[in-house]
Parts: sequence; C-alpha cells; structure tokens
Amino acid sequence: MSSPNENASPFQPPVTFMGVPHRAGAGDARAVILGLPFDCGTHPTRVGARMGPASIREQSQLLRAYDGDTGINPLEKLKVVDLGDARVACGDFETSYPAIEAAMEVALAGGAVPITLGGDGAVALPQMRALHKRYPDLVAVHLDAHTDAYPIEGYNNATPFARAFEEGILDAGSSFHIGTRRSHMVQGVYNYGRQLGYKIINMDELAARGIADVFREVREVVGQRPVYLCFDMDFFDPSVAPGVATPAWGGVSAREGLSALKAACELNIVAADVNTISPPHDPGGMSALLAATVVYEMLVMMAAKDSRPT
Amino acid sequence: MSSPNENASPFQPPVTFMGVPHRAGAGDARAVILGLPFDCGTHPTRVGARMGPASIREQSQLLRAYDGDTGINPLEKLKVVDLGDARVACGDFETSYPAIEAAMEVALAGGAVPITLGGDGAVALPQMRALHKRYPDLVAVHLDAHTDAYPIEGYNNATPFARAFEEGILDAGSSFHIGTRRSHMVQGVYNYGRQLGYKIINMDELAARGIADVFREVREVVGQRPVYLCFDMDFFDPSVAPGVATPAWGGVSAREGLSALKAACELNIVAADVNTISPPHDPGGMSALLAATVVYEMLVMMAAKDSRPT
Amino acid sequence: MSSPNENASPFQPPVTFMGVPHRAGAGDARAVILGLPFDCGTHPTRVGARMGPASIREQSQLLRAYDGDTGINPLEKLKVVDLGDARVACGDFETSYPAIEAAMEVALAGGAVPITLGGDGAVALPQMRALHKRYPDLVAVHLDAHTDAYPIEGYNNATPFARAFEEGILDAGSSFHIGTRRSHMVQGVYNYGRQLGYKIINMDELAARGIADVFREVREVVGQRPVYLCFDMDFFDPSVAPGVATPAWGGVSAREGLSALKAACELNIVAADVNTISPPHDPGGMSALLAATVVYEMLVMMAAKDSRPT
Amino acid sequence: MSSPNENASPFQPPVTFMGVPHRAGAGDARAVILGLPFDCGTHPTRVGARMGPASIREQSQLLRAYDGDTGINPLEKLKVVDLGDARVACGDFETSYPAIEAAMEVALAGGAVPITLGGDGAVALPQMRALHKRYPDLVAVHLDAHTDAYPIEGYNNATPFARAFEEGILDAGSSFHIGTRRSHMVQGVYNYGRQLGYKIINMDELAARGIADVFREVREVVGQRPVYLCFDMDFFDPSVAPGVATPAWGGVSAREGLSALKAACELNIVAADVNTISPPHDPGGMSALLAATVVYEMLVMMAAKDSRPT
Amino acid sequence: MSSPNENASPFQPPVTFMGVPHRAGAGDARAVILGLPFDCGTHPTRVGARMGPASIREQSQLLRAYDGDTGINPLEKLKVVDLGDARVACGDFETSYPAIEAAMEVALAGGAVPITLGGDGAVALPQMRALHKRYPDLVAVHLDAHTDAYPIEGYNNATPFARAFEEGILDAGSSFHIGTRRSHMVQGVYNYGRQLGYKIINMDELAARGIADVFREVREVVGQRPVYLCFDMDFFDPSVAPGVATPAWGGVSAREGLSALKAACELNIVAADVNTISPPHDPGGMSALLAATVVYEMLVMMAAKDSRPT
Amino acid sequence: MSSPNENASPFQPPVTFMGVPHRAGAGDARAVILGLPFDCGTHPTRVGARMGPASIREQSQLLRAYDGDTGINPLEKLKVVDLGDARVACGDFETSYPAIEAAMEVALAGGAVPITLGGDGAVALPQMRALHKRYPDLVAVHLDAHTDAYPIEGYNNATPFARAFEEGILDAGSSFHIGTRRSHMVQGVYNYGRQLGYKIINMDELAARGIADVFREVREVVGQRPVYLCFDMDFFDPSVAPGVATPAWGGVSAREGLSALKAACELNIVAADVNTISPPHDPGGMSALLAATVVYEMLVMMAAKDSRPT
Repeated sequence: MSSPNENASPFQPPVTFMGVPHRAGAGDARAVILGLPFDCGTHPTRVGARMGPASIREQSQLLRAYDGDTGINPLEKLKVVDLGDARVACGDFETSYPAIEAAMEVALAGGAVPITLGGDGAVALPQMRALHKRYPDLVAVHLDAHTDAYPIEGYNNATPFARAFEEGILDAGSSFHIGTRRSHMVQGVYNYGRQLGYKIINMDELAARGIADVFREVREVVGQRPVYLCFDMDFFDPSVAPGVATPAWGGVSAREGLSALKAACELNIVAADVNTISPPHDPGGMSALLAATVVYEMLVMMAAKDSRPT
Repeated sequence: MSSPNENASPFQPPVTFMGVPHRAGAGDARAVILGLPFDCGTHPTRVGARMGPASIREQSQLLRAYDGDTGINPLEKLKVVDLGDARVACGDFETSYPAIEAAMEVALAGGAVPITLGGDGAVALPQMRALHKRYPDLVAVHLDAHTDAYPIEGYNNATPFARAFEEGILDAGSSFHIGTRRSHMVQGVYNYGRQLGYKIINMDELAARGIADVFREVREVVGQRPVYLCFDMDFFDPSVAPGVATPAWGGVSAREGLSALKAACELNIVAADVNTISPPHDPGGMSALLAATVVYEMLVMMAAKDSRPT
Repeated sequence: MSSPNENASPFQPPVTFMGVPHRAGAGDARAVILGLPFDCGTHPTRVGARMGPASIREQSQLLRAYDGDTGINPLEKLKVVDLGDARVACGDFETSYPAIEAAMEVALAGGAVPITLGGDGAVALPQMRALHKRYPDLVAVHLDAHTDAYPIEGYNNATPFARAFEEGILDAGSSFHIGTRRSHMVQGVYNYGRQLGYKIINMDELAARGIADVFREVREVVGQRPVYLCFDMDFFDPSVAPGVATPAWGGVSAREGLSALKAACELNIVAADVNTISPPHDPGGMSALLAATVVYEMLVMMAAKDSRPT
Repeated sequence: MSSPNENASPFQPPVTFMGVPHRAGAGDARAVILGLPFDCGTHPTRVGARMGPASIREQSQLLRAYDGDTGINPLEKLKVVDLGDARVACGDFETSYPAIEAAMEVALAGGAVPITLGGDGAVALPQMRALHKRYPDLVAVHLDAHTDAYPIEGYNNATPFARAFEEGILDAGSSFHIGTRRSHMVQGVYNYGRQLGYKIINMDELAARGIADVFREVREVVGQRPVYLCFDMDFFDPSVAPGVATPAWGGVSAREGLSALKAACELNIVAADVNTISPPHDPGGMSALLAATVVYEMLVMMAAKDSRPT
Repeated sequence: MSSPNENASPFQPPVTFMGVPHRAGAGDARAVILGLPFDCGTHPTRVGARMGPASIREQSQLLRAYDGDTGINPLEKLKVVDLGDARVACGDFETSYPAIEAAMEVALAGGAVPITLGGDGAVALPQMRALHKRYPDLVAVHLDAHTDAYPIEGYNNATPFARAFEEGILDAGSSFHIGTRRSHMVQGVYNYGRQLGYKIINMDELAARGIADVFREVREVVGQRPVYLCFDMDFFDPSVAPGVATPAWGGVSAREGLSALKAACELNIVAADVNTISPPHDPGGMSALLAATVVYEMLVMMAAKDSRPT
Repeated sequence: MSSPNENASPFQPPVTFMGVPHRAGAGDARAVILGLPFDCGTHPTRVGARMGPASIREQSQLLRAYDGDTGINPLEKLKVVDLGDARVACGDFETSYPAIEAAMEVALAGGAVPITLGGDGAVALPQMRALHKRYPDLVAVHLDAHTDAYPIEGYNNATPFARAFEEGILDAGSSFHIGTRRSHMVQGVYNYGRQLGYKIINMDELAARGIADVFREVREVVGQRPVYLCFDMDFFDPSVAPGVATPAWGGVSAREGLSALKAACELNIVAADVNTISPPHDPGGMSALLAATVVYEMLVMMAAKDSRPT
C-alpha cells in the first residue's frame, strides 16, 4: 500500500484500515474510510462500540489487498484513504453529532463513497443528515436485527431511523430494514416502523424467501436512487459475530451475510457504514475481522463496477 | 416487568430471569423459572455448570419482552415468576437431589410449567421424580449430544435416564433422545439405551431426515401425553454454544436448534429444563444468552397456545 | 446468615453481600449495604463501574463471617442487611442522583450506617446530599488517587467534592483527600482543592510520613464529627487493584491500605462507600474481592466498637 | 486406553492424544500421532501455532474412544501410539526441518500412517520430503483457505507447496488445493499455483458444486496413489475455528468440513496433518477440540477400512 | 537437562517440571517431583486446583536451571526426576487418597525428598499418612492463610490437619500454622486448632514480629525432626498469587514469601508440597510461575546443603 | 496536546503517546517517542513484545499531562513528539537492526532525547550503535532481571550487551546491570558479564543496600558521561508487571521501581528505552500502563531539569 518513497523511510506509517494512506481529506479517492468511535454509554452492561474503529483497523491488517480471482487490488484502484476518526465524545450528542456530520461532509466533498466504522447504531443519524444535503432523494437499506426506528423519544441507538423520518432526510417509503428478530422492549415496534413507511423484512421472512428474492424486491423499489447502506453487524448470528452491542440469536451465517452484502452492492451505494462492533465482547477479535471483511468486500465490488482508469 | 408500585421505589428489584418478579411460590403463574446450580464436580477439566443459572439470568437482561410479530408479552400473559435457585451443594447427591425434587414440587403445586436452568445433566433425575408424582404417564423428549442413559452405575450426568428407567418414573418406550453424536467412553451406549426402550435419533439421522420429519414421528408416538422437555445446550454445535460442560462437534446450528425447539413445543410440555451451560467455558457469554433465548422462545410458544385471559 | 426457617426452604436466598438478608428497609440493622450501579459512561475506554456492585457481592461469597481473633460474627452482631441496588440509569444524572439520594434516606432512616458499593466516583455527591440533611456538620475523609474536586464544571466523577463544597453540604475545611497521585488533565488541581479548603495529602507525603502520623492529624482535625468515609479503590496501587475505573501507579499496598482503613475506622463514620471497581478491567475478580474485604473489615471494626447487646 | 498393568500403577500416564500410549517408536501401530510445535514466528500479531500440539492433546481428553454406531474403538484397533513432539526450534528452519523429516521417518518406518499435529503451514514441506522417499508417486490433497504455493521466495508458511514442486517431491499435476478464499498479499497467486500444475478449487466453487461433486473429481484424478492429506484448520470458517494462525471469513461449517474429511478419507491416505491451530487465538479451546475431532474421525474411518485382525 | 543421547533423538521428551527426566521411580534421585491433580470439586465457584500440576509444569519451562550466584545446577546435582501425576479422581476420596499415599511411597522408597504439586489442600492428609510410616516423629510446618484444621467433620480441604491429629500421624504439638488471616466460616477455628496442640501464628503476628523471629521460634521447637513443609500458595497476598483456590487479602509479598521459604528450608525437610494453584483463576499464569519458583528455590537450597558428590 | 487549529478539525489526530503530535522528524523537540515493535519470535511460549508499543500508547491515554505538584506539563515544555514505529520485521535482524539504527539517527538529529518503546531486549543493540556515533563515551545503566550479556553467540534478546562490548560501542567498565535474579539457562552468566567489565548488582544486593546507596555508586562511577538508560520492565516483580517477555519473581515493587527511575534520571540521560512489555501476557493492560508511567515520569524529571524557555 505504501509508495516507494514511504518504503525508504525507517518509520512505519500510522495504523490505518488495511494500511491505506492516512490523509486529512479525500483528495481524488473514490472511497474513504472514516471511524466513528461513539456510543451512547447508557447500556447497562454492553458498552464498548466506541472502541470498534480501532479494533476493525487492527484486525484489517490480517486482510491482504489482492483479489485472487480478478487480480485487482481495490485499494489501489479506488485510491482508498483513511481519514481517521471523527472527533466525538461518548454520550455527548450535542458535540458529537455535528462532528460526525462535519467529518462526513469532508469525506463526501470530492465525490467519494465514505465507508464508516462504528460506533453504535446512533451514528446513523448524523451520517444521513450529511448525505441528505448531497443526495436529496436518499434511501436507506438497513441490515440489522433491529429496526432502529422505535416508538420512543430522544437520540440513541434505537431511534436514528425514527428521527431521520421526522427530519425528512430520507425517503422511508423506499427504505428497507432487513433481518430483524423477535424480542423488543416496547410493544408495536414493527407497526410503528411500517406506519412511517419503512419496509420491514424480518429474519423469518428472509430465511423463507431467500436472499436473492428479497434483494430482487429491494432493487425494484430502490432502482438507481442513492443508497445509504447501513450494515449493523448484529445482522449476523451471534455464533458468527458475538462482539456486537446488542446480539440477537437467529441471524444469518457468514456466507449468507456476505451474499446479502454482494446483492446490496448492486445498488447505487453512495455511503455505507459497518457498525456496532464492541471489542470488549469480542474475545478473539473475529467479529472485528468480519467487519473488516465486509468493508473489503464492498471495496472489491465497487472496484469491479468502477470504470475509470486507475 | 415491574408494577407501578415497584417503579416508585428508589431500589431495583433483584436480578431474575428477564426481570420477572422474584417470588417464594408459583402463585397463579402459568410458568415459573427455577435455577438448579448443581454439577457433579468430577469432570477433570470442565467444571462450572453450577454457575449456569446465574449466567443465564444475567444474559437474559439482553432480551426484551415483547414479541414483535404478535405484540404479545409472554412474561405478562403467563404471569411468569422466578423462584430463584434450589438449595443444592455441588457433588452432594444426598442433599441436593431431595432439594431439587422439593423445589420442583413447589413449582408444580399450582399447575404451572416449571422451566429450570441447569446445572449439568444430572439435574434431570430429581426433576423427573417430582414430575412423575404429578404426571404418572410422563414421557421425555431429550435433545442432547449424549443419551445420558449410559450402561454404568451411580448418580452422575451420564446416567439420569438409566436411573429414571429403573425407578419406573418415565415411559422410556415413548421417550426420545435426539441429536446424539459419535464418541463414547464405553462400548454399546446406543444398544443399551435401546434395550431400555428409548428411541435414539443420532445427529446424522436428524440431519438426513430433517427436523420436521423427526418431530412428526415424535408427535405420533407421544401424542397428548405429558412431556418433560430436556434441552441440553450441547445439542447445539460448539460453534454455536461452546460454553457447555461436554461439547461435541457436529451439532445443530442456532436456527436449526430453535426450529427443533418450536417443533417440540407443539407437544404437551409440562416441564422443561435448559441445562449444561458452563460459564467458565463461555468467554463472551453468548451460550448463556442462547440458553436464555431458548427459554424465552418456549414462553412465547406457551403464550401463543394459552387461551386463558391475561 | 440464614434463619432456621430459611434453611428449611428448598430454595436459596437471593445473592447479597456475604449472604446477609435482602430487605426493603434497614429495620433495626446497625449497618446496611446498598449498591450504586452507576457510572457516567463517558470515559473513552474504561466504562464498567456500573457493574461493580454485582461483582463485589459475587466475590463477597468467598469471605466468611467469623473473625478468627475475636470470635465475633459482625454480620450478626450488627444485624446487617442488604437493600439491593438504587434505581439508577447510567449517564442520566437527572434521574439517578435523586434515586441515590432517596435510597440513602431509606438506608439512614433507622440510624444505621450505610456502606455503599460503587459505581464510579460520581456517586459521592448524592450520598453527601442525603447525609448532610441528617448530619449538618458532615466532614469527608476521602482515600483516592484523585481529589475529585477538579476546577471544571458539571456533574461527573471528577467533581463531586467541588459541587459538594458549592452546595455547602460538607465542611471542606475539615475534610481530607489522601493518597493523590501526580498526573492531572488540567492545571492547578491541588491549588483549586486547597482554595476550597480541603486538606490534600498526596501519596509521596503519605509514604514519607506514614499512615499513623497522617491519621493522627486527621483525628485531631475531625474529632468526633460525623464522617463520610469515601474509599475509592484506586487508592490502592494497580498491582493490588487493577480493576478500577482510573488506575494510577504508585499507590498503597494491600496491607497499607487495610491499615489506613483501620485508622479511619477510629473516626465517627456515619456512612462509607467503596467505589470505582470496574469488573471488565478486573480479569480475576480480585479487585472486587478486595473491595468486599474492605467492607468486611469496616464491619468488624464497627462491631468491635458497638456496645449494644446483640 | 491403558493396559491392566498400567491401571495398577498409582501414577497416571503422560498426557497424549486421547490417552494412547506414549512410545519412542511406531512399533506395530497402524497409525501414530506426532506433534510439530513449530511456527515461523514472523507474523506481526498471530504467533502461536507452536503451541498447537499441546492444546490439541489437552482438548482430545474430551473425546471418548468408542464409536457409538459401530462399537469400534479405533485407538485399540489401529494400536495408535503417540510419539510426542519433534525437536524443533521456532523460526529456525535449519535445525527444525531436518528434525521434522527425521521424526517422520521414525513414524513411517513400520508402515504406519502418521497423523501430525501442527504447527503452522510451514511444517508441510519436511513432511513431504520424508514421505516422498517412501512414496515416490506422492500426491497432496490440501484443504486450506490458502494455496501455500505463493510466488515468493524462501521457507515459510506461504510457500511449502511451491518449494515441494521445485524439489520434485510431489506430483503437483495430480494434487489439489480446496477451499481457498479471496484476499492475497501478492498478485497472481492462483495463476502461479496453476502454472505449477496444481488444481485449485476455491471456496465459491466448492460451495456451488458441493462437496460430493468436488471429491468425485479428486478421486478420479488421484485414484489409488498415495495421498498426503494436509488439513489446515482455516479451511473452516472463523465462526467455527477462530483459533488459527490466519483466519479467513467465508469457510465451511463444522458439518461441511467433517463431510469433506470423510470424502477425503476414501482416498489412499498415507499421512495426514492437522495444522495451524493457534491456542492464543482460541479463547475457549474449541478450535483445538475440533482439530482433535478431525484426527479422531480420520482414525474411525481408517479403522473401518482396516481389515487386519485387532 | 537431557542427556547427549536424548539430544540425538528427533523427538522432544515429555513435558516435566523444568524438563527433568520423566521416570517411573525415584531411582537415585535426591528429590522427586510428583503431581497431585486432585480437588474436592465442592466449592461453589472456585474449582480448578486439579489443573494445578499441569500449569506449574508448563510455567516451570520459563525457569532456567543454573543458579547465577553459585553456578550450581540443582536439578543435576540432586538428580531430580518427575514421576508425573498420581492417579486420582476429583471428589473421590475413596480411590484418590490411597493413590496419593501409594505414589508417595514410591517417591519415598529411595530416600528422596518428594516435592508435590497440588491439588487443593485436601492432598495433605494422604501425604502425611505415607510420611508417617517412614518418619514416625513427623512434624508439619504449614504456611497458609487457613489452618486447615477446622472443627468440622469429613475429608475436605478444611480438615486435613484435624484428621491428621486424630489419626496420630503427626506431632501437632511441634507443628506450626503460619500466616493465617481473619475470616472463617465457623466460630472458634483458632481455639480448636490450639486445642489440638498446633501453634498458630496469624498474619498480623507474622508481620509484627518479622519472618526471622518467627522462624527462630520454629527452629527451636522443631529442631532436627523430620518436617513436612506444606506450602499453600494462598500464604501469598492475592496481589501476588491470585490464582489460588481460596484467596485471602492481606498476605505476604513475593519477596517476604520467598524469604520465609528460605528460613523454612533450614529445617530438616523430608517432603514438601506446593498446593492450591487454580489455573482458571490465574489469568496470566504468574501464580503458577511463582509456585514453580518456590519449588526451584527449595531445590537450590537443598542442593546447597547436599554434601554428596554429584 | 492539540493546537487550537487541530481542535477545529472534525477529525481526531492519530493515536500517539499521550496524544502528543505525530511528526516525521524531531524538529525542535527535546524528547521524542519512538516505537520498536520487534521481537525475536523464538521463545517457545511468550512471543508478543512486538505488540508492546501499540499497547503502551493505548494505555498512555489514561495518563494526564499536568504534574499536580509543579503545575508543569512536561509534554508541552519539552515539545514532545511521537515519530511512530521503526520499520522492523520480527525475527529478521538483517533488515530490522539497520531500520532501528536509522530511526534512532533521525530521532537524535536535533539533539533530542529519544525514549523508545520496546520490543524485546534485542532492540538495545542497534540503539547503542546509533548512540555511540553521537556519544562516543556512552555508558549504559540497565535495570533488568537479566544481564542480557550472556556467554552465547548470535543476535537475540540475551546478548545485546555482549555484542555491544565486542563492537566497542559502550564503555562496559562504567556500565551497570541492576536487579538481576537467580535462574539462568547457562552456567557462569555473572562471571562472564564481569569479565567484560560490567558492574552487576543483583536483586538481593539491591534489596540489602537500598536504592539510594546503589545509585550513589552509579553516580560516582558514571559522573556526567552520556547515559543510555535501558529500562527492562521485568525489573519489576511479576506481581507488578506480569505482562513482560521473561518474568522473574522477586523483583522490585512499583514504588521501588519508580524510585530507582528517579535516581537514574539524575544522570545525564541521552536516550532511554522501556522494553519487553508483552501485551498477550498482560491481561488487564496494567503492565503497559506502568511502562507508560515510567516514560511520563522520565519526562517530568527531564522537564524539571530543563532550563530552556518553553
């Protein structure tokens, strides 16, 4: 990943996602990495998504750049850079939400696709605020065990898609929540989400219809509109990704999840996040490695679609 | 889960399964939780099922009461209470077996369905002793990597179903062991189990026939008779539930196991246990969360069948 | 700890500090245990003091009631009960501070000495609010690596003794911070503390003068006034108690710390807390066991002073 | 596993694989266990395969000898012995490669099938050197996420199958790499491997065609030639076996992997290794237990084919 | 440690204490190592001393044989061998006590000093039974946080010195319990121990008088009589050795404990054990390394006293 | 640590030691931080010092810049910067030694004092090579449980001070090894070290004479000559710093070690390293925090001596 010049230095470059250059701005990159080390701090026992970006970057060192099938190195082809982390303070929405929004604006300025590393689910809202300014007809495809559109008040990780609806920053009627599981803290979560217009496909339906069929429906509804792909790692089963903020048994396997990702990447993704990795709950770090793999697979698919010369 | 009155208190209620009330007796509950923190203490390296109930209760705090599909809160509908733990002493069968039996009698007194949290497999015997007094035509459906009906002597976690046969407290001829795997410490384990009358469906057969077909057979044999559902968490593959006393590779996935549970719950379950969670072998606690999920899913299915007014 | 009647039950009582009875009020107890599972949730990496009370109670099961030297069982002599935990929500000062204050009032109502289990250092303020109502001439003796009286704004774990001064709920001029270590996030921490009137004895001074000499000064200043003993577990060196929220190398050894505790207990302690145990940072649980030992040693010393008949 | 005479001793025999006898030579055993506690020591973060043999032996104590279906005890039927570990020094190829080769020669001397416990993938080369002397028409079947035939120089865990080709010690044209995944550190890994003659079936192809179809092709190509079965535990998905040196998401499930093993065992296996278990990355030890299960399943299948009297 | 002949082998010798030869009998060794992997299995949470010998042997590989000060290699000088482990079954006193006694007799047969690796404190009784046969005037010096002579019935880790008194196998009146700490599960532990004749020096007294003074008294009382040195690792403070069965805060530092050991080794030690290491409670393994260091220091001191030619 | 301009950015700066600026060169800094993530990779079980710099930087975030006693912020006063890590490859001396030497030359170019973060003890040699070019009369003060001047061949962590003597890059006759402990892998380690001229003060002597007396001798011998302070974290007892490459019981306490550091800092330190932190063996990270504290205390003392205007 390093230029010949950098190799001549006796120093190693800073730790970044898969060793891509650390830069203060997107430059001519077509994809940029941005960490969002924020969590609400209010869960009684599973705090720690704030440490997700560091863990994903660390585990990403185990990945190698070349795609064995195509010979493509997506990091080089897309000129990927890592902007580091947004300047957030856990539990402090007043300063952190504007910081995330501002960091997203920097990331988006040159037309690159930002891929963010969470952080808990609450980081979705300020990302959508920034995205909406650039993409007024934004829709969301949200892979998650939860809708994050709960009928409760305030800013937290259960409500970004409720708030986004209220703020009018995405078209709920063309947006999807896929992979939700059964248990909820309040009554009527699905009803409320559907009232807002969201399409909700729970895990049972996903398993029954299959990934191909569900994403055929998604493609029909979404078309070529700009998509914010929100990939909550608890979409995976806890046997696959235990190291998340709010695990829920009965999710997808690793191959199923990567297959859903592939299907999603056929959409017009303008930004993506990979969130809720919680390192204190990820004893061997494999959940973070899977999150890094999700990012890498996105980049491979973006590189395959990208027709501009390297 | 707490009444308005409890909410007014500046104190939190004690930790119970999913926060249901802690009570000294079953009252008018239709389902009760009972912990059985007992293990034999004799395994050379994997002792710890004694700490299972505490870990399952702790992880159950991650579950939320409302079923998103039906809107039902099974905890409220079934008036579930938690009796705490039976007064056992690890390795001491002389005092612990009567204590488990007595605790089960309290749990059963009002007609509730007890769901117990193990403890290792040895806790099955005193449960069946109590159940047989109330349900003389008791049968067992046992999901486990092992038959627990080994041709050896004494009380331990390899023999409860051998002893139960000898004591005449269940109808072995209509009882099933499902999901057993290959390796055994003595020769002839399956032959011996079948000699006692048990139907043994090993993992290969379960995988080949499918869950639906196997449980069709179970329903035909068992009919409407009262069933003790013994759910050993090592029924799951160690990739799913590593935190068990005696893991055996080649078991069911999480979705398969929950599907088998659903099929079993169509029977006339009069008691159930969820055993062998061993917290020292469950680094991230996810096996205990899965055990809590198994309990919750049972309650959802019981609530769906329950026709009495809330 | 259990009455004969409880022994007859087939159920175990709930987990409490060393197995003392769980009660909704102090009754005629002379000492009561109260958990304060609160932390601010804002530290970038070391969140977890919220789980301190559960861990201290769990580890306290390793302690045994009888003092080998005197034959006294302080739990029985002082009729100690455990009120459970105050109803707090992490990071939410608006609801949690009144809940802690209210719980303290219940604990104090019968004249008992509350011993609270933290929680991070922020729990000190609402305790002092409740104490001040009952003991208007309250002073504090604070054993801690930090003064918790920082020249910054707001409610958090760096400021309870700054806020307490401003609220006029303790006599800073007769109160001590003992064991502070070098590094601080802002300039002038000691100057500010001394400006408020506090006596600050840093670790170097404590080591140079010795525990006996320092507590001689404390006794001279404090006399018989009612003392709130705030025992932050980071008073100990991290080699002794690594499992704390904000460890600072260079603290006291276990025997030194227990010796300082003994000296402090010669004062007129009307309430004590043992705070900042952070279980996620306490791999073997020994820091929590030490916190439980601190509580037990307090009880032994209270029992030795107590002249009322058992 | 122990003879009556050994049972009379007040001492336990040394820890060996499943308790088989420790012997200095193969004697009349038809299968022997050999540990290869070697790794290159050069990975930036995941060193530890050197501790694999000890962990596999430890976890193998959880397995029991009798096959429940056939009643066969393969350890007795095959007179399995454990030779202990080869005398290697991590990172030191000059002394370790000859030691592995010499230990293999001892293992092979009586015609037994050695099953070795790795060690990282670099241990394959000296094994093949020893095997080639006895079996000049050796072929390899290599189940692994990587080809280990990279277009780079030197001895390490990325090149044993490149070096083996160059040394002419196996017939690459009839050898297979099965289960490879996408990401590579250099360009052209698959092309290079195919240039050497290897047949490479990546994970996508394996998933698409199915295990049965792929192994039908393997059997057609390999026929009755002597096969070195190289089973790298990263063939499994990290959800199944996280405790490996170089995990790669998207691999086979436990049942799929055991099914592939069964298919491979229909070949004429003359030696097998089970490598890359890395205990520091295997928090609950289940990856090592799976490795032990792989060894045991091989023995069961060898015993089933073996027609000589016990 | 290995002879030239062994170095020529391509195999490593089995894992033993510091690599000394594994032998079936003591031969002409002057000191022998014997593992006693037994624990009662009855503690509610801290089971695991059964795994102590394996962990101590593993950590002992970090120690090196040559004493830097004297240049002596005590392993060679004393011809130390490792007999492996006695054939025990946890919780089963009926078979395990005779096995320990028999193993000790083998160890003692040639006049060697056995140094045993526990196991919990219950292993002391059968050792004393064997020792008494050879040394009728046996006395014990017991360094421990507990007297292990509790006024309760039965065989367990709280009573070996009570049972030993009753069996008349040691001279309690000349035996010492040193380092005991405060809290006890029953009343009157010290009184009872003193009634049996034991001299009890609790931790406060040890700290006040100093190690030199206390061991002066020990030497005066014990003289040249044969001493069983029972070194319970909970003699150390939990800041030093957290990985023990029953930790008690307030014990000795590492340097103090090694200094007490040195003083004890001036006595006529005929056997020693180092017990209660509990690997599941020893996250970094340092308690086991300290236990190995205690054994090594004993050997250094024995070698220094030994006047026979090497 | 960050300038107003940096605060305006929505991004956080990269992780550095205590948040000082990351720079490609020393500029006008008076002290610079440099990571040396190298270890030999050859230890059978305790590999991991290569991850030391990352862990020390991470834990250093818990330290705060202002010295409470003096009000000085040494990071600002000394204009400390962090150069990141030298470009090393574990086990590869051929490329890593020149890289460390070159990185040191960059660090030294402007006259700053480099403080390096190890890495195992082998990193000392290339540092001394670079230092000797600038400071021909270099001496070393080496606080360590081992002399690292063993009578064996080659480059590794047991020989840097033997090789340095042979290369003539330091004045052995005025250099010290302080704190060595007993056990050695070869005979005659101390004799050999003394033959080379080194002064060796083992732990027993250090304890007997006291830190003040020993460092009085050091000051007399060393005078104002330029000193390379090599601070191996295993100088501390394993109860204090378990997370090191080669722990040895019987070392200094935290307060003793910090006191020795203070005494050493009165010398003319021209470079210092803090090495052998091994994160895989440091479960709670406290050893790394202590290493960070050692660095911070050095900076405080350098700042106190520094008379140049800020």
